[in-house]
Amino acid sequence: MALIVQKYGGTSVGNLERIANVARRIKRWHDQGHQLCVVVSAMSGTTDQLISMARQLCPHPNERELDTLLATGEQVTIALLTIALHSIGVPAESFTGARAGILTDGTYTKARIRNISPDKVLATLAQGKVVIVAGFQGQNDEGYVTTLGRGGSDLSAIAMAAVLKADICQIYTDVDGVYTTDPRIVPEARKIRELCYDEMLEMASLGSKVMQSRSVEFAKKFGVIFEVRSSLNDSEGTVVKEETPDMESVVVRGVSLDRNQAKITVGGVPDKPGFAARIFTALAAASVNIDMIVQNVSEQGVTDISFTVSREELHKAQQVIEPIAREIGCKSTNAREGLAKVSVVGIGMRSHSGVAANMFEALAEKGINIEMISTSEIKISVIISETYAEEAVRAVHNKFGLGATDRRC
Amino acid sequence: MALIVQKYGGTSVGNLERIANVARRIKRWHDQGHQLCVVVSAMSGTTDQLISMARQLCPHPNERELDTLLATGEQVTIALLTIALHSIGVPAESFTGARAGILTDGTYTKARIRNISPDKVLATLAQGKVVIVAGFQGQNDEGYVTTLGRGGSDLSAIAMAAVLKADICQIYTDVDGVYTTDPRIVPEARKIRELCYDEMLEMASLGSKVMQSRSVEFAKKFGVIFEVRSSLNDSEGTVVKEETPDMESVVVRGVSLDRNQAKITVGGVPDKPGFAARIFTALAAASVNIDMIVQNVSEQGVTDISFTVSREELHKAQQVIEPIAREIGCKSTNAREGLAKVSVVGIGMRSHSGVAANMFEALAEKGINIEMISTSEIKISVIISETYAEEAVRAVHNKFGLGATDRRC
Repeated sequence: MALIVQKYGGTSVGNLERIANVARRIKRWHDQGHQLCVVVSAMSGTTDQLISMARQLCPHPNERELDTLLATGEQVTIALLTIALHSIGVPAESFTGARAGILTDGTYTKARIRNISPDKVLATLAQGKVVIVAGFQGQNDEGYVTTLGRGGSDLSAIAMAAVLKADICQIYTDVDGVYTTDPRIVPEARKIRELCYDEMLEMASLGSKVMQSRSVEFAKKFGVIFEVRSSLNDSEGTVVKEETPDMESVVVRGVSLDRNQAKITVGGVPDKPGFAARIFTALAAASVNIDMIVQNVSEQGVTDISFTVSREELHKAQQVIEPIAREIGCKSTNAREGLAKVSVVGIGMRSHSGVAANMFEALAEKGINIEMISTSEIKISVIISETYAEEAVRAVHNKFGLGATDRRC
Repeated sequence: MALIVQKYGGTSVGNLERIANVARRIKRWHDQGHQLCVVVSAMSGTTDQLISMARQLCPHPNERELDTLLATGEQVTIALLTIALHSIGVPAESFTGARAGILTDGTYTKARIRNISPDKVLATLAQGKVVIVAGFQGQNDEGYVTTLGRGGSDLSAIAMAAVLKADICQIYTDVDGVYTTDPRIVPEARKIRELCYDEMLEMASLGSKVMQSRSVEFAKKFGVIFEVRSSLNDSEGTVVKEETPDMESVVVRGVSLDRNQAKITVGGVPDKPGFAARIFTALAAASVNIDMIVQNVSEQGVTDISFTVSREELHKAQQVIEPIAREIGCKSTNAREGLAKVSVVGIGMRSHSGVAANMFEALAEKGINIEMISTSEIKISVIISETYAEEAVRAVHNKFGLGATDRRC
């Protein structure tokens, strides 16, 4: 008998019928004698609808109030799911993030979990009840509701699994695992059975929509084994865990795509120490997540610095950058949307050469221009125009023969 | 400059446009230098929709979970209204019931306020901010969300006004005051300028939909002067306060109607001491609100006891009554819906006789049968078939000449 944390996303609890279906799934696990802590998202569409209402009242709503607003979405789901469980005879109790003991810092709309006090959850599990926790939310020192940002419910689930020392954390979603690439783009893409954290981390940070990177980081840090699987069928999903020796035999594990890219170029930055630091310190202080950074060769004492952010953060990044750029005497700042990032990932790259060359060749064969390049030990990413995103993914996936055989770890 | 508590009901905040409108109203008061604590309900329809969802999952949902669910309605409103205030430059901060310090007992779906710790609210008012409080909700000792039942937001407002020692509590609603009777039934009904608590209490408890009686009781107990007025115009409403000597000159202040009545008759109760007590102790323990109680003359050692409850509580009352009735050997229990209560109210009745006779005469002239009668110092109520409810109100209103002149306190 295991202690299992399950997480159901917005689509899985998207209407009353689906909530009743999730309740029946939970009942099956509960009937087998497992202890269950279930983390849920808001019903699909709810969060967007709430954000839209807030923005109609004020284009840039106060973030603390936004969190108070958004947290209601998950609170609705926990109550409804608990009620659905009662109706089929499963003892259960709902927990808001605050009640589950999830304490965060004070960064509204993108808070970080500081600590979890699981006493109430553990006591409730010990009574044989299923614990239903509102994902995506916590409480800060001042007692205000905070939300954890995109993918926050996954983070809640992984964090609960860590603190409860759960045997496994099952992330239920509308896909049945992690694929070598998005099967909607490449029909011959295959489900990956096992991944190590670093590979999943790169997949996540690179835009594979299954999970956000910080949830995977959290899982890696605390050794939480998790499984990405479907809430619509009973197929086994993709298990993510510590690296094992035979994982290295696969050079490229998958190809991921992130369409949601924007680029800011600060032109004519005086090429002196400290200017780049000022720019990126200010962005960090405003909690803007920077992805790739490229600095061109200096000409006549000035240089250009380009960096990418998610499109949602472009406005905020511009607001931070423009006064600083003026202050330090830069020539121009230039923002560009409509970009995509295509990446190949695999821990096998560490011991294999020629991966970058193969990737660039695949793109060149299709006449696709590369705007920025970034590499790490286990991944290579390129920024291209969003127009060619899918073509690029197909070309690269094919180049590495990822659809040809069922590659297993 | 005054400290004002305002309360806006569900209709007043029923959509984004109305929320923006309420924000503009608040701004006008704020601009005049008043300190404002604003209590809001859920957007109209929200609470019913949430209840309906819960009932689709389970016909009798767990009440603690229901409260967690329902409390989201007001939480959405406080955040949206606060955001709307920010957008027009009014500093404001939202407070859930728990954060506003509203501590209740543990009776879910119908909790009673035990205590309010207003420190955070007072500190925020002192900063010049408008405080926006979620009505209808509080928190119990165990930290669970509780809701205050029907009319709970009025209660939240009156209680906040009491604890903040506000100069006045303005109850904004979709009617512009208390009328001598419902103007939809009797077009010549008139707005009453001032009422004393006891009259308002009888009006409220008798089904005039403006306010629930416990809010009025609370106001009376703590001497909170409140005004019922419209959120759609700037007309002065009806002020409710301590009795003044000249209020007695009006014999009948108004006629009220409560359609929402049901009756349970327990037949063949052994006519011995203690049986009635057992029945009503059990109902009280189940938090069923009893209104009128009538015990008929005993025949052959047994008697009939009839009592009225609101239609919503009929099911619960039956569940409580039936096992007890069997246990104490009663012959039958009989439930009946489709009843209405018509009442006349006025503190002047204390010093005038013949009011009851006039009322019964008015009904007799229309051939309307009276099923139960109940009287107090300042009101007379009758239970009749709901079919004749409006006709009865018109007849009684006319009999006391309430529409003829603008009677003022």
